[in-house]
Amino acid sequence: MVIEAGRDGAAGRRLRLGMVGGGQGAFIGAVHRIAARLDDRYELVAGALSSDPDRARASAADLHIAPDRAYADFEAMAEAEAARPDGIDVVAIVTPNHRHAGPVQAFARRGIHVICDKPLTHRLEDAEALAAMLARTDVIFGLTHNYTGYPLVRQAREMVAQGDLGALRVVQVEYPQDWLTTRLEETGQKQAAWRTDPERSGAAGCVGDIGTHAFNLAEFVTGLRCESLAAELTRFVPGRRLDDNAHMMLRFAGGARGMLWSSQVAPGNENGLKLRVYGEKGGLEWHQEQPNTLRHTPFGEPSRLISRSGPGSSAVAGHASRIPAGHPEGYLEGFAQLYRDLAEQISARIDGRAPDPASLLVPGIAEGLRGMRFIAAAVASSQRGAAWTDIPA
Amino acid sequence: MVIEAGRDGAAGRRLRLGMVGGGQGAFIGAVHRIAARLDDRYELVAGALSSDPDRARASAADLHIAPDRAYADFEAMAEAEAARPDGIDVVAIVTPNHRHAGPVQAFARRGIHVICDKPLTHRLEDAEALAAMLARTDVIFGLTHNYTGYPLVRQAREMVAQGDLGALRVVQVEYPQDWLTTRLEETGQKQAAWRTDPERSGAAGCVGDIGTHAFNLAEFVTGLRCESLAAELTRFVPGRRLDDNAHMMLRFAGGARGMLWSSQVAPGNENGLKLRVYGEKGGLEWHQEQPNTLRHTPFGEPSRLISRSGPGSSAVAGHASRIPAGHPEGYLEGFAQLYRDLAEQISARIDGRAPDPASLLVPGIAEGLRGMRFIAAAVASSQRGAAWTDIPA
Amino acid sequence: MVIEAGRDGAAGRRLRLGMVGGGQGAFIGAVHRIAARLDDRYELVAGALSSDPDRARASAADLHIAPDRAYADFEAMAEAEAARPDGIDVVAIVTPNHRHAGPVQAFARRGIHVICDKPLTHRLEDAEALAAMLARTDVIFGLTHNYTGYPLVRQAREMVAQGDLGALRVVQVEYPQDWLTTRLEETGQKQAAWRTDPERSGAAGCVGDIGTHAFNLAEFVTGLRCESLAAELTRFVPGRRLDDNAHMMLRFAGGARGMLWSSQVAPGNENGLKLRVYGEKGGLEWHQEQPNTLRHTPFGEPSRLISRSGPGSSAVAGHASRIPAGHPEGYLEGFAQLYRDLAEQISARIDGRAPDPASLLVPGIAEGLRGMRFIAAAVASSQRGAAWTDIPA
Amino acid sequence: MVIEAGRDGAAGRRLRLGMVGGGQGAFIGAVHRIAARLDDRYELVAGALSSDPDRARASAADLHIAPDRAYADFEAMAEAEAARPDGIDVVAIVTPNHRHAGPVQAFARRGIHVICDKPLTHRLEDAEALAAMLARTDVIFGLTHNYTGYPLVRQAREMVAQGDLGALRVVQVEYPQDWLTTRLEETGQKQAAWRTDPERSGAAGCVGDIGTHAFNLAEFVTGLRCESLAAELTRFVPGRRLDDNAHMMLRFAGGARGMLWSSQVAPGNENGLKLRVYGEKGGLEWHQEQPNTLRHTPFGEPSRLISRSGPGSSAVAGHASRIPAGHPEGYLEGFAQLYRDLAEQISARIDGRAPDPASLLVPGIAEGLRGMRFIAAAVASSQRGAAWTDIPA
Repeated sequence: MVIEAGRDGAAGRRLRLGMVGGGQGAFIGAVHRIAARLDDRYELVAGALSSDPDRARASAADLHIAPDRAYADFEAMAEAEAARPDGIDVVAIVTPNHRHAGPVQAFARRGIHVICDKPLTHRLEDAEALAAMLARTDVIFGLTHNYTGYPLVRQAREMVAQGDLGALRVVQVEYPQDWLTTRLEETGQKQAAWRTDPERSGAAGCVGDIGTHAFNLAEFVTGLRCESLAAELTRFVPGRRLDDNAHMMLRFAGGARGMLWSSQVAPGNENGLKLRVYGEKGGLEWHQEQPNTLRHTPFGEPSRLISRSGPGSSAVAGHASRIPAGHPEGYLEGFAQLYRDLAEQISARIDGRAPDPASLLVPGIAEGLRGMRFIAAAVASSQRGAAWTDIPA
Repeated sequence: MVIEAGRDGAAGRRLRLGMVGGGQGAFIGAVHRIAARLDDRYELVAGALSSDPDRARASAADLHIAPDRAYADFEAMAEAEAARPDGIDVVAIVTPNHRHAGPVQAFARRGIHVICDKPLTHRLEDAEALAAMLARTDVIFGLTHNYTGYPLVRQAREMVAQGDLGALRVVQVEYPQDWLTTRLEETGQKQAAWRTDPERSGAAGCVGDIGTHAFNLAEFVTGLRCESLAAELTRFVPGRRLDDNAHMMLRFAGGARGMLWSSQVAPGNENGLKLRVYGEKGGLEWHQEQPNTLRHTPFGEPSRLISRSGPGSSAVAGHASRIPAGHPEGYLEGFAQLYRDLAEQISARIDGRAPDPASLLVPGIAEGLRGMRFIAAAVASSQRGAAWTDIPA
Repeated sequence: MVIEAGRDGAAGRRLRLGMVGGGQGAFIGAVHRIAARLDDRYELVAGALSSDPDRARASAADLHIAPDRAYADFEAMAEAEAARPDGIDVVAIVTPNHRHAGPVQAFARRGIHVICDKPLTHRLEDAEALAAMLARTDVIFGLTHNYTGYPLVRQAREMVAQGDLGALRVVQVEYPQDWLTTRLEETGQKQAAWRTDPERSGAAGCVGDIGTHAFNLAEFVTGLRCESLAAELTRFVPGRRLDDNAHMMLRFAGGARGMLWSSQVAPGNENGLKLRVYGEKGGLEWHQEQPNTLRHTPFGEPSRLISRSGPGSSAVAGHASRIPAGHPEGYLEGFAQLYRDLAEQISARIDGRAPDPASLLVPGIAEGLRGMRFIAAAVASSQRGAAWTDIPA
Repeated sequence: MVIEAGRDGAAGRRLRLGMVGGGQGAFIGAVHRIAARLDDRYELVAGALSSDPDRARASAADLHIAPDRAYADFEAMAEAEAARPDGIDVVAIVTPNHRHAGPVQAFARRGIHVICDKPLTHRLEDAEALAAMLARTDVIFGLTHNYTGYPLVRQAREMVAQGDLGALRVVQVEYPQDWLTTRLEETGQKQAAWRTDPERSGAAGCVGDIGTHAFNLAEFVTGLRCESLAAELTRFVPGRRLDDNAHMMLRFAGGARGMLWSSQVAPGNENGLKLRVYGEKGGLEWHQEQPNTLRHTPFGEPSRLISRSGPGSSAVAGHASRIPAGHPEGYLEGFAQLYRDLAEQISARIDGRAPDPASLLVPGIAEGLRGMRFIAAAVASSQRGAAWTDIPA
């Protein structure tokens, strides 16, 4: 879909947003806030931004949150906000993995919609419990596997679904980074510290942090369920407690075969998430660092470069774009798309109408569970010498 | 400067913003609004969004502007907002070129700061008058040559300034697009209509619309003044009234030589602004469609790819970044940087303090005048058979 | 090493060359002949070019081979040439895999040096026998794992060996093609027919044809022995008798871990051999389709692009180059490098002098055996559900 | 045209080749020899390889030229070879520019066919005289504007000719290098010395050396005659006697407009010849350093990447290819194509038959004259302040 005019949020209800985690020095909290603001569908009005009360207060002040809505802990926040007539509509949970389940439950229980960072939790059993609990509520739950918000990722999914590639055969997904090439966690770097700590991250390091994104992307685009995997997880940096590199072979329902590589010790790779999918009739290639181009390779024809909002881009991609082709959109816009789509879902719920179907691609609890089962299978397989291990449906 | 944490607006005053132009169906108005929101330093509270009153009202409602601050015309808006205790601090002018000068003067006269889209005006004499008028006021004036907001463009400027390339010799700048390859202006497409209309755009089409960006980028990065040019402007599409392709040779102060190509009839080019600069000791290459990489080619050494926020990126680039390397930022983030920097300038003015020096790179009235003189010289040169024509300082 | 002048073969003895296989319609025979001619160190004077006598004769005539040296079969050729005072110095064996062992033995037994296409044979036991037999002769044996002839592949090997990357951790190698996406072997296409036929190719299809190249490249550049693998070989095209896709995980001596993907059913991939190697201090990336650039990514520094014959290229690369940087060399030049180096080895043998050490990088019988053991291990692993399987040293 | 089998010279007469120039230390002589050998249609049997007799002799010995055919000067060579029953069929002239005209005449006068390096001569008047003289002979004359030998350059020409782009509008050609960024000619480097010396190169430096290639490529592909130019030639390196950078605007018959940039002082550019052509219906882009891909951008459709010998490549490109897609061919193969085509032309002449029409694309005397007139016009325009200057037809 060729976009000629710029588009911001479009008319739409502005939701009251709260945030748990994301105080000063955090990475992903700031990203969530930009994502929430970009399309003007949210107003950040409350927060429990840090487990440290001083930092929580200071962080709230930075963000123009009124002092009486800067909470010391999420439980108090959930209770107070649920009680206010102008209480938050939705909360974003951006804490480390081991602190997802508690807040999600606290808010969901009170009917407040939830946007949660990935992976869902740090232990599979918590995830299962959370899913069961959420199933008994009526809240909308979005999980920020943000790469699904990129316009051309969605178009890739659509092209596969409508058979442009024929039956799929091969799925190659990789997510290399290099920032943990040295023992950064010993230097006081906050991001590195919790992501390499089994207490806060869970049983997997690199696999949980970025392997889950790669896995989600592969399932999202192919529409295929990965049934089993054979994995080798490695800790290369001496003294590190969790894997910093993972190699896997994948078997998909229907017979497709794949590989997944995630690494945080591959120098020269910054955030190299890349997906290649091949079927009987053609292939698709997409690279997160050049997200505005999708390479389509119909067998027996010249390769085609589809650019976001340019010729050959579809309405599905157009839904997730804001500006014309050639004006690069990036990570924040892709992330914002999840927020925009969730705003539509939540607004529709509030207004008692059906949401725009295009807004329904946001990953939710099902994808969260898939991710946790993937982690568990990868860890188990690796412990058993890369034996093939099922990923329960 | 390696960025490890995400960064949104940082603590800072939130300014009250008004907008003139940018109603439903516009391109650049939506971009300005996203840019204003991204770092949370502005709140859009007033607007004269369209010259059509109904569209103005509807557009304002879409944008959550209170009905009493949705104005029918900019003059009324300027007067009313200047009179309110909670009146706007700053106004964004996003009308077609021939409707820049009036609003700028109306607001500036009343001490309201101004952010104006480029080019400055549609006639050089208006620009000169505007500059003279602004010189008598105390307002801050920012011109959205948005490509100067890209982190690596700023780093390129810094590298040139600190002598990394030695004395400059060659400057190659180009800005090809393809959207006017056919006579789009006859189809009702609003963007095409005004941009190819001399009444609304001025004496130049492609040169004014995008050639000015290329020219600004070249002077911004090199720090050199372009003293004269020899230009050939062409109208390729039958019936078109303004140039849709321009070729120029450039002479810079100090002896550097350059070329500028801008086109809107080059199929396959979406928004291909590209700058290459070569000096005695090395070169730099930057391409707007891949803005997160700067190629540095020190003579006699392997080429280096500097990535935004990655190794080799400087504090100047870091100032204009929000997220770590490998997470692509794009057009909107670059645009937003001008807004963020102007927020800092205006806030500092309000607070009676000195602004962060890093915020002072935003183009202003001087760059606006340069652009208008460039347009005038290009048109004059082309009319005289590409004779060398001075661009007054 | 910056090359300023063009370089052809340089002074050097011109060897008399024979060829077995490579008649009209063959692929790799023509490549061997161009490779032999490029540096002017060989003269093709004899051949048993086809098992079909008419085609053998006609092919010989095309190639200016004298009728009396156009042989009906390799055995006769070996006997006759060995008996001639002007008999061939060296023979190139370019038949399908199942017809390598016989000719190699026939010529080697008579003291004629041998250049053989890969893989060494079609059965491991033949390869072992051949190696044993060759060990009892004094002939020089070169195996055309031609990708080792690329200048920057050799430089990559050197950089790893001299510790530029530190201890290696991760090795990613892949070799996707697409030409067997459909059942081409049923259409009469000669290349497809024998490569998918177990009688002529051996127990593996894609793994033997191109997986061996990938494996060889990985061991060549890293200098590490791959000790074991876990492989999943797949036949995607209905009716195909041998694998057309292979996924493997690799374990290297010293602890490095890797992946290998080879495929002939990945649309849009023509000859996509690509190697990425990461160590404690940096990484290297090389892609066969862009062979004139080597990406070096020292950790914590900007990426560097080393171009063949350009700044940062080494003497090892210079040895394998002919023309200055920016003048692309390709597949044929890389292939020719093996021929040039073997010419030096054979000439030195004839002249009773030590060969140029730079000429000794050509793969030989040891690499041939490695390749056959790799194939056997891959097939065995896949049959046992991707169980880890040792590759004997 | 998809190529499945490898192809070397194909059956065909082998011509006896002589060479003038190209002794030890030369660049282009070695390139010519490799080009002549690649397809096996030539045998180098005679040479006047250097004006220095010792070097001439030693160079001949290196190249297996019999001592009695190693000549001290070209005049003697022409006379002796013309007299031999086994005398050369064709001679390659690879001397510096000022030594082209003499040898060409000496051999042509005696009915020996000529292959000459570009530019044709060092002075326009010599070129005119040479053309007049050749017109009175019957010899075949090929000029090695070697970039016309690349398969996809020929396909680009064909696509333009058959109207795939519609009427052409814009032609952007550039040829940046960096090897003369410093005053290399003072260091004893032989290539730099003669190319910057007006006595040996003529009135232009960079323009003659590489600008002529760019100009030839533009006219070759577009099929349009460039009628006039406005040029600014610059000498950036202090003490240099000829231009090392040139900027030009071009006007083509039929109304197309273009730019040409050639430079030898642009760090990071090795041999960056690049052509972009845009018409009413689409565009084409080709870059010499990535010669195996042609980008085709039909307006309103996704860009297409046509790969040499891959889907979408034409028979014209197939004629100039040797190996399947994905196996990169480069500079030497493109150069060799001119030799192969000339072998066909000369063989057909000898055999009294019509040559393969596909062999007739080799530039000849007409292109040589065009190049000289281009140089003259560029120099004249630059001397007159970049005034528009006609290039006589």
